[in-house]
Amino acid sequence: MTAGINRQILLKSRPAGAPGPDNFELVQRPAPQPGDGEVLMRIRYLSLDPYMRGRMSAARSYAKPVEIGEPMVGGTVGEIVESRNAKFAVGDIVLGYGGWQDYALSSGVGLRKLDPAAAPVTTALGVLGMPGMTAWAGLLEIGQPKPGETVAVAAASGAVGSVVGQIAKIKGCRAVGIAGGPDKCRYVVEELGFDACVDHRAADFARRLDAACPAGIDVYFENVGGAVQQAVWPLLNDFARIPVCGLIAQYNATAPIPGPDMFSVLRKRLTLRGFIVTDFAAREADFQREASAWVRSGRLRYREDVVDGLENAPAAFLGLLQGKNFGKLLVKVV
Amino acid sequence: MTAGINRQILLKSRPAGAPGPDNFELVQRPAPQPGDGEVLMRIRYLSLDPYMRGRMSAARSYAKPVEIGEPMVGGTVGEIVESRNAKFAVGDIVLGYGGWQDYALSSGVGLRKLDPAAAPVTTALGVLGMPGMTAWAGLLEIGQPKPGETVAVAAASGAVGSVVGQIAKIKGCRAVGIAGGPDKCRYVVEELGFDACVDHRAADFARRLDAACPAGIDVYFENVGGAVQQAVWPLLNDFARIPVCGLIAQYNATAPIPGPDMFSVLRKRLTLRGFIVTDFAAREADFQREASAWVRSGRLRYREDVVDGLENAPAAFLGLLQGKNFGKLLVKVV
Repeated sequence: MTAGINRQILLKSRPAGAPGPDNFELVQRPAPQPGDGEVLMRIRYLSLDPYMRGRMSAARSYAKPVEIGEPMVGGTVGEIVESRNAKFAVGDIVLGYGGWQDYALSSGVGLRKLDPAAAPVTTALGVLGMPGMTAWAGLLEIGQPKPGETVAVAAASGAVGSVVGQIAKIKGCRAVGIAGGPDKCRYVVEELGFDACVDHRAADFARRLDAACPAGIDVYFENVGGAVQQAVWPLLNDFARIPVCGLIAQYNATAPIPGPDMFSVLRKRLTLRGFIVTDFAAREADFQREASAWVRSGRLRYREDVVDGLENAPAAFLGLLQGKNFGKLLVKVV
Repeated sequence: MTAGINRQILLKSRPAGAPGPDNFELVQRPAPQPGDGEVLMRIRYLSLDPYMRGRMSAARSYAKPVEIGEPMVGGTVGEIVESRNAKFAVGDIVLGYGGWQDYALSSGVGLRKLDPAAAPVTTALGVLGMPGMTAWAGLLEIGQPKPGETVAVAAASGAVGSVVGQIAKIKGCRAVGIAGGPDKCRYVVEELGFDACVDHRAADFARRLDAACPAGIDVYFENVGGAVQQAVWPLLNDFARIPVCGLIAQYNATAPIPGPDMFSVLRKRLTLRGFIVTDFAAREADFQREASAWVRSGRLRYREDVVDGLENAPAAFLGLLQGKNFGKLLVKVV
């Protein structure tokens, strides 16, 4: 087949503070042609994730920033439409890192074939993909939850937080979610089975969180920072563990934000550890085996928030940074 | 023998901010009489340590505060002068927790007999005691230094820091000390064998520290907090470990001091872990065996700063909080 026009969403400029629509640009270009050993993917689903905010900035980080004028990066599920690589056939559905566009080339390295009969292919971008693995590895490897302990997690209806709390329940813990608004909180308790969920928009949020954690907090899975972190900190028990996975409430800060009181780190013997999912790449097979079984048995549930059309990706992403999504945010590209 | 007058230094009042001489009171009382099962110790040496600042405050911590009107607590080496406990004989030299006074009673629980022929008895309060164990456990259990890595430690000529750097050298690391003034820095390099020592009083301290750590910092043993921490933070390598042992530069703060930027914790995947030495009590025998051998072989050196007379303990302690001591601070009580 001959591929057609490739719509791409480029990083047009770097945001100072909160990004806006003007930082992105939609362009149309001819779809590329695969060279020897390459495949061409038609992208079906694009994952939108908070880490992409970091890629928009030039600041030193664990990954290179997106260059101005380059397509935004992102995990994708696509279909092979042309193949000059013997490992992939036209029609294969693959998980890859195709970015915000209709078509992407790949050498095949890092592509993983998906079996649509085993699970909906979109789960490879969510509960059985990078966000799920992030939750699984951060909670179990760093948080090390023990039965009867209390695990607190913010963004509890989101792609990572929802998995953190459900695995905490599987491990015999009390799971306390924090989310924005009554609908998300209801979903977290009634659908996901958390023991409690506290609305961080409530005026008496800190008091409600305290009430939801009568035995304090042993693991705080840090997704957000900011005001939620401040409310959590006094509730941490001695020897609490804090996997530091994200700080979405602080991503648009233009000056360094001071961290929490170090005295409590000392006095309570807290462990804080930052991580990114690739630090645990060696555990990927273990994650896939465990999480797939939990999804099949209904112990691990998920919700997708699917936005239609690549052209709507920037607005959806800006909404994600403000907590407007409800569940794992995906773009159905075409 | 009949014990005589017991001089005691009491906590007279709680400091607001930096403590002063008026927070202490010297009183004279009759020495106590041991009851059944008890011993009476004549205290020879009192250890002065930064943690005592915490005991002067009423704030919640890992240990109970000293009550107003009670003697200040502290580790001691003493001689048994009366014994109604079959495990101890008059004349035994014991490590205990006798406090700031001439005489102390003990049930015997927690007392350890010392062999003056094996090592100078004062080492039980320093290099082979709580400070040495603090350095050993914090560096090895939390810091996990690997050969070729860079270990940075502040208060490098002090009781804990000096041991941290020397063990780092034993483990094949580059040891970089931070100390106050050229005399201490010279001692740390020339006598203790650190690779470098940087004077934190120098106007261009941060630049000098950077120059002393050409490959960055992999382990920062946190004793001080404050400005030293701020200079260290940008030099931390990815996956650096930060055992949080003390924050002496912040002990007199009257309001919470914000901690370091959490973005760097995330981006660099740092591990911060607070600890106190008793968290590692199960490793005490391992520490004693290793550290004693290092002291005997000359690989682990120490320096004592001995102040004469119990009455001088408050001034010596206040000096410790300002870095005026040079080596492990002890009071020769009598």
